[in-house]
Amino acid sequence: MPLYRVTLAYDGTDFLGWQLQRPRGPASSPAGGAGKRTVQGVLEEALGRLAGGERVAVAGAGRTDAGAHAIGQVAAFELPRQLGPDDLRRVLNGLLPADIRVLEAAPASPGFHPRRSAVSKLYRYELDCGGVLLPHRRRFAGFVPWPLDEAAVRQAAALYLGRRDFASLASAGGSVKTTVRTVTRSEAVFSGTTLVYETEADGFLRRMVRSMVGGLIAVGRGVVRLDALERALEARDRSAWPAPAPACGLTLVRVDYPPDSGRS
Amino acid sequence: MPLYRVTLAYDGTDFLGWQLQRPRGPASSPAGGAGKRTVQGVLEEALGRLAGGERVAVAGAGRTDAGAHAIGQVAAFELPRQLGPDDLRRVLNGLLPADIRVLEAAPASPGFHPRRSAVSKLYRYELDCGGVLLPHRRRFAGFVPWPLDEAAVRQAAALYLGRRDFASLASAGGSVKTTVRTVTRSEAVFSGTTLVYETEADGFLRRMVRSMVGGLIAVGRGVVRLDALERALEARDRSAWPAPAPACGLTLVRVDYPPDSGRS
Repeated sequence: MPLYRVTLAYDGTDFLGWQLQRPRGPASSPAGGAGKRTVQGVLEEALGRLAGGERVAVAGAGRTDAGAHAIGQVAAFELPRQLGPDDLRRVLNGLLPADIRVLEAAPASPGFHPRRSAVSKLYRYELDCGGVLLPHRRRFAGFVPWPLDEAAVRQAAALYLGRRDFASLASAGGSVKTTVRTVTRSEAVFSGTTLVYETEADGFLRRMVRSMVGGLIAVGRGVVRLDALERALEARDRSAWPAPAPACGLTLVRVDYPPDSGRS
Repeated sequence: MPLYRVTLAYDGTDFLGWQLQRPRGPASSPAGGAGKRTVQGVLEEALGRLAGGERVAVAGAGRTDAGAHAIGQVAAFELPRQLGPDDLRRVLNGLLPADIRVLEAAPASPGFHPRRSAVSKLYRYELDCGGVLLPHRRRFAGFVPWPLDEAAVRQAAALYLGRRDFASLASAGGSVKTTVRTVTRSEAVFSGTTLVYETEADGFLRRMVRSMVGGLIAVGRGVVRLDALERALEARDRSAWPAPAPACGLTLVRVDYPPDSGRS
C-alpha cells in the first residue's frame, strides 16, 4: 500500500493533544471517544472515511500536549488507494474540521517514519508578560502577570545549548532510553511585552520545551538565580526544576529529515 | 453617579456582536438571552453584579458585527459607587469571561459619550489570500483562496480616501442621517500572503469597512475593474457593490476623542 506523509497545522485548544487515547473497554469512536478528541484520532477518523471504512493508522513526529499547537507537524500513513498529493490534501481538508489543516501532502519513501526518521525539531513558545492577557492571544500564548528581566532570560536560554542530560526537565510517563539530547538552538527574543522563545534539538523529552520555558520564567522573574538554574539542570532531578509553562503557548514549527528521506 | 470610560479588547468569535438584543417578551438574562451572547450584554451583566444587582446601562463607541473583534473599543457607564480606575479594571476583569478584557479604566467628564464624543475610529482588516487558511488564523482573518493583485488592491484602497458619500457601502438597517463620511486613512499592506488593511474615518456606516474590503477583493482578484469600482462608489446604490468580506477579519483598533474630553 502506498505510504504518504503530510505536513499539518492545528489549533490545539480543543484537542487533548496529539496522541489517540485507545479505549480500554468496548470499541468506541476512533476520534477518541466522548470528551477525548485528539489530533491523531480525528485524522484517523477522516482517513478511515477516505479509505471506505478501513482503519488507517497514523504515526506522528511529535506527541504535542493537550492545548499545544502545530504549524509543521509531520504525519505518515498507508492508504489502500493511490491518490495524487494535491488531491489527497484537498480531500483530507474537506473531511477534517477547521482546526486541523493539511498544508502539504507527498508520497513517502518506504520505511519513512515521521518520528524515527526525524533529525531535528523546532518548537516555538510565545509568552505574554505583564499587563492583561489579550483575548485574541489567549489560545496561543502563555501568560505571566510580571515583566521579565530580558538579559537574564537570554542568559538562561543559553544554558540549554549543547549535548546535555535533560532528565531534570522530563515529565514522568515517557518511555525513553536516554534523557540526553543535543539542543542546537535556544533563542529568546522579546517583542514588546511578548517573549518568543525558539528551540531546536535532535529530539525533546516529554514536556521538555515547556520546562525550558518554566526555567526562563523563574530566572526572568528573579525567583531563581542563573547559577541555581544551572545546578538544577545538572542535578538530573525533576523535583529540582521550576514548573513547566502552560501548553497553550507552544507550537511545533518544523520537523527536519535527511535530504534523501521522506519523499520518493 | 460617577461616569466611567473603559477601553476593551474582545475576541468576537463567540459573540453576536456588540449590541444587546433587547428581549421583546418577558425579562430574560441581561447577557442577551439564550444564544444571544453580546459584548454589551455580557458587560452589563458583569457591571450589574458589581452594582449589587442594579441595572447598569453601557454605551459603546462602535457597534461591531457578530464575529468582529476589538482591541480598542471604548465604552462608558455610570456606577452607583466610586471606584479607583485600577480597581475598577481589576474587579471587572475578575467578573468578565476571558474573551473580553478591560485594558484601561478612567473617570469620564460629564456628558462624555463613547460614540457621540468620538472624532475618529481606526479599523483593521486581515485577509489571508491563497493556499490554506491556517487553523490559528481562522478566528481572526478573512480568507480568499486566490492570490490578489497587490498594486490593484492599493489603487482601490486609495479610492476611498476623502469626504465622500458611501451610500453604496452601507448595509440596510442603519438609522443614519447622512451617508457622507471622511476617510483619512485607507492603507493596504501585504505581508507574505496576508493583506492588512487599515482605515480611519470620522465614522463608519453599517458594514462599511467589510464592504470596503469586499471592493478590494473584487478588484484584486480581477473580477471588477478599478474604474467600475469607482463608478459603483459614485452610484450610491448598495446593489452595485461587491459583497462585504466576512466579519472575522475585522478589528476595531482605536477610537479617538478631543484632547479635553472623556477624562476628568
